[in-house]
Amino acid sequence: MRREITGFSNPTVKYLRSLREKKHRKAAGKFLAEGLRLLTDARECGHVPETLVMSAARDPHPLIDALEAAVEAAGGEVIECTPDILSKITGKDNPQGVAGVFAEFDTSLAALDRGAAKIWLVAQALRDPGNLGTMLRTGDAVGAGGLILIDDCADPFSVEAVRASMGAVFTQKVARASWEEFLPWLRSGEGQLVAASLRDAVPYRGAPYAAPCFILVGNESRGLPEEYEMACDLRVTMPMRGRADSLNAAVAGAVLAYEVLEALGG
Amino acid sequence: MRREITGFSNPTVKYLRSLREKKHRKAAGKFLAEGLRLLTDARECGHVPETLVMSAARDPHPLIDALEAAVEAAGGEVIECTPDILSKITGKDNPQGVAGVFAEFDTSLAALDRGAAKIWLVAQALRDPGNLGTMLRTGDAVGAGGLILIDDCADPFSVEAVRASMGAVFTQKVARASWEEFLPWLRSGEGQLVAASLRDAVPYRGAPYAAPCFILVGNESRGLPEEYEMACDLRVTMPMRGRADSLNAAVAGAVLAYEVLEALGG
Repeated sequence: MRREITGFSNPTVKYLRSLREKKHRKAAGKFLAEGLRLLTDARECGHVPETLVMSAARDPHPLIDALEAAVEAAGGEVIECTPDILSKITGKDNPQGVAGVFAEFDTSLAALDRGAAKIWLVAQALRDPGNLGTMLRTGDAVGAGGLILIDDCADPFSVEAVRASMGAVFTQKVARASWEEFLPWLRSGEGQLVAASLRDAVPYRGAPYAAPCFILVGNESRGLPEEYEMACDLRVTMPMRGRADSLNAAVAGAVLAYEVLEALGG
Repeated sequence: MRREITGFSNPTVKYLRSLREKKHRKAAGKFLAEGLRLLTDARECGHVPETLVMSAARDPHPLIDALEAAVEAAGGEVIECTPDILSKITGKDNPQGVAGVFAEFDTSLAALDRGAAKIWLVAQALRDPGNLGTMLRTGDAVGAGGLILIDDCADPFSVEAVRASMGAVFTQKVARASWEEFLPWLRSGEGQLVAASLRDAVPYRGAPYAAPCFILVGNESRGLPEEYEMACDLRVTMPMRGRADSLNAAVAGAVLAYEVLEALGG
């Protein structure tokens, strides 16, 4: 059954809108995702929103009908509102016709099955939600298992990160841990830790990668702490032909991930 | 000689601040860059700001002295202001201690020397200034000649693009053209046009790349128009192991650029 909301001051609107802020997401354990393609990707991966919000001005689409049916079958709530209210909720001037509220996933290291994939991406203190979403998207493309966020990273459940992930937040596992938690977890099983580095490194092309390979990239401004680099099993270097001595973090991770994919035969 | 500015309503402050907006940059033919590292990179590449703006609260640094000397030797202007005013100019809460105003570069295709590099990046309708800056940075890293912006792209001289380029806007050539201008220019000399594509494509790894190689990436949402893809000399495909059928535009360009760099022997 659909509920209609017409007023900006409706408490549900306030609640949904509050999920744009990290503290409210954390308190509620929920996050927002928008757009029919993204919500359809989510549904096809088994993630049905608890609440589906639809603009009354949306174009009819069988995939919207499928979403609505899935939400109702799962006992969720369907809300119809004006485009203005949807815009207020998602913070976009031209909101896509649908948005959904999802429960945040378990982001503990314990929930990861490292044997499930040959490649894992690991980011340390990654501050930009766009970079974080891009890494999730790259991870999906190379068939990685997921993205492990070390130390103080951007929130993977922010609207910006979810948007930049193009739905990969629903296909990739996401874990969050401190370095002090991550390293013992890594060493408790198989796994090669690899970083792009200028210290004591071998060329990234043809380096002896081994599965499961954990590709570690550092903070956008500072790169990786030396201690973290030195804890790696393999340090590799990429050609730098210009004045720069580094790449954008998400770019470096992607170039490396495609090289590892080639080496490990996908 | 330094000029001190203490008032927010000073016309110079208003002018400098206006350069954050595209229409004012276009009218003035100037752009803003901030940060000591970026301005130093610029200086070392022969680009001295016409106006140097320094926060009165900056930490002393020999590179700031060198910048100031270079600006004065070139007949430019040095302005000292409060951190608040610098913050207002650059739009950043914690402004770096220095910013500079530069004349925009010649962005005509005619200004490019295609034989100067083996790799050129080409972006079509790239809308995100962060992606644009990241592509410039990648171009610098792979020793590309520059970035050619086709159709309606983000402004390479926006504060966001300049910042994301990490100074590469000063080392890479930038050209702007419509597709109707670009294609005849390309065909008037040597040059292989390559795009990542799903249409009639060969694997990107080991494809027959040839210098000068022009790597074409498309719009973030829509990708390349089919007509543009079909005009390419070579269409290559990258593995997509997940649900996604594409990568972030700047990421796709970078993975491809590193492959071409390897193939063409740098």
